[in-house]
Amino acid sequence: MGDKGILCIGLVCLDIISVVEKYPEEDSDSRCLSQRWQRGGNASNSCTVLALLGAPCAFMGSLAPGHMADFTLDSLRSYSIDVSHVISRPGCCFPASIVISNISNGSRTILHKNRNLPDVTEEDFQRVELTQYKWIHWEGRNADEQVKMIRRVEEHNRGRGAEEPITISVEIEKEREELYQLFAYGDVVFVSKDVARHFGFNSAREAVCGLYPRVRKGAYLVCAWAEQGADALGPDGSVVHSGAFSPENIVDTLGAGDTFNASVIYSLSKGQSMQEALTFGCQMAGKKCGVQGFDGFI
Amino acid sequence: MGDKGILCIGLVCLDIISVVEKYPEEDSDSRCLSQRWQRGGNASNSCTVLALLGAPCAFMGSLAPGHMADFTLDSLRSYSIDVSHVISRPGCCFPASIVISNISNGSRTILHKNRNLPDVTEEDFQRVELTQYKWIHWEGRNADEQVKMIRRVEEHNRGRGAEEPITISVEIEKEREELYQLFAYGDVVFVSKDVARHFGFNSAREAVCGLYPRVRKGAYLVCAWAEQGADALGPDGSVVHSGAFSPENIVDTLGAGDTFNASVIYSLSKGQSMQEALTFGCQMAGKKCGVQGFDGFI
Repeated sequence: MGDKGILCIGLVCLDIISVVEKYPEEDSDSRCLSQRWQRGGNASNSCTVLALLGAPCAFMGSLAPGHMADFTLDSLRSYSIDVSHVISRPGCCFPASIVISNISNGSRTILHKNRNLPDVTEEDFQRVELTQYKWIHWEGRNADEQVKMIRRVEEHNRGRGAEEPITISVEIEKEREELYQLFAYGDVVFVSKDVARHFGFNSAREAVCGLYPRVRKGAYLVCAWAEQGADALGPDGSVVHSGAFSPENIVDTLGAGDTFNASVIYSLSKGQSMQEALTFGCQMAGKKCGVQGFDGFI
Repeated sequence: MGDKGILCIGLVCLDIISVVEKYPEEDSDSRCLSQRWQRGGNASNSCTVLALLGAPCAFMGSLAPGHMADFTLDSLRSYSIDVSHVISRPGCCFPASIVISNISNGSRTILHKNRNLPDVTEEDFQRVELTQYKWIHWEGRNADEQVKMIRRVEEHNRGRGAEEPITISVEIEKEREELYQLFAYGDVVFVSKDVARHFGFNSAREAVCGLYPRVRKGAYLVCAWAEQGADALGPDGSVVHSGAFSPENIVDTLGAGDTFNASVIYSLSKGQSMQEALTFGCQMAGKKCGVQGFDGFI
């Protein structure tokens, strides 16, 4: 079953990235060092990294048709990411995010656009042939619908008896009440530093211990904490940790979290231990921070 | 000769404008209130305002072909701005500027892209049929070439004897040594607050008096100074001044200077006095600051 793919469901958007040497002061006029248009969105970025690691993968998300959508689809295809589950929503605006990437300290300041693009629904997901996948990852967004999709996969897994079940992972990145129901779903739950802090935790270790009662029995809870590395807690009750692998010069942290998630998923999907997966995730995320964009670090 | 047009030579670019309620802090993630794509560039903006005022006008500048160029040309045409002197430069990058527009205080923070697009040359300008125009305005950029173009118009004016000569104006907005030779050219010279400050002047009045020795005999020197209005000095040696006409709520100052220049040019081209032109320029620039973009203030 080595040919089964990994499906990531979530956002794709356009990131218009201006690279600067110094964060601009308000009301100033300055010149950026370079500007690039890059496909973004957590699930879309994670697909890029999975594809670069050599995993067959597919992206599922919504697109508004037009020049931006063409740019995005071309970019997905250029990494051999399967786009057959991309849903076109006519009449919607394509979301573009403005990113100011400061090479002096790696900071990335993001200005999101309000999007009127409906997320993937349970109905859309009904068309996915589950037997193609060994792993399905959800970027937490429209959680009520996402729970229904996850339940479909759980049923599928129960029905297949001895055959290898599909591993389910979810990412809870944004501090939004609706998303917190996702803790109770999936074999692997990624929780962000921002969400952990929102719950009052001050380290990845504190977060995985404190939030573990929310995950379902047998699941892993994973939390990355930038330059402090990442921690995970699983059913055996012992916290595993990896330190960060910071590059000599941090030039671009945009998508570092997506790189971490993809690398952990990749490693676990290959049968490695959580300790190995965390270490690999931190290594890849660190390498990513040392380069602009996603090319040339794997 | 009432049908003769006004030609503006300079930059056209794409402004990707994110409207925010608060200027983003470095390394934050925030949502903008709205985002719009707007044609920008000083000369291109001044054409928009001239067209809105009802003056027949033409834009001359370079474009890199592609989706962005199509968007830009469509926008110019939608204001009935003549684009027959737009020069397409294959193989170049289209310049896009990132603008963060803060509706709480009207500030506009601009991040320009390095452009590899050659400016209009004297050779390009040779193809312009001068008899079509009553006024030609240069946005100071490649000043060495621009001086050659201006000399062509001066020769044309001298050759026409009693007929109405073409009025020449130049804008010196950026603090770049090369541009300062342009002070010596043109019937009307617009100097920006930034350039005036660079020369050590602390008000529009100081600037027009202090820089007047640089302009050619008989010319007007004009300087706008945001909420302090604008001053001009002409051959009769008396400084004329207009106060600003600030709107109740300043929501968007992007292009206010281009609006001022266009309005002064429009007024003078209609035979009004410099005092009338300055007042009109300040009125229009003030109105522009009260609205997003260029639509709905004239």
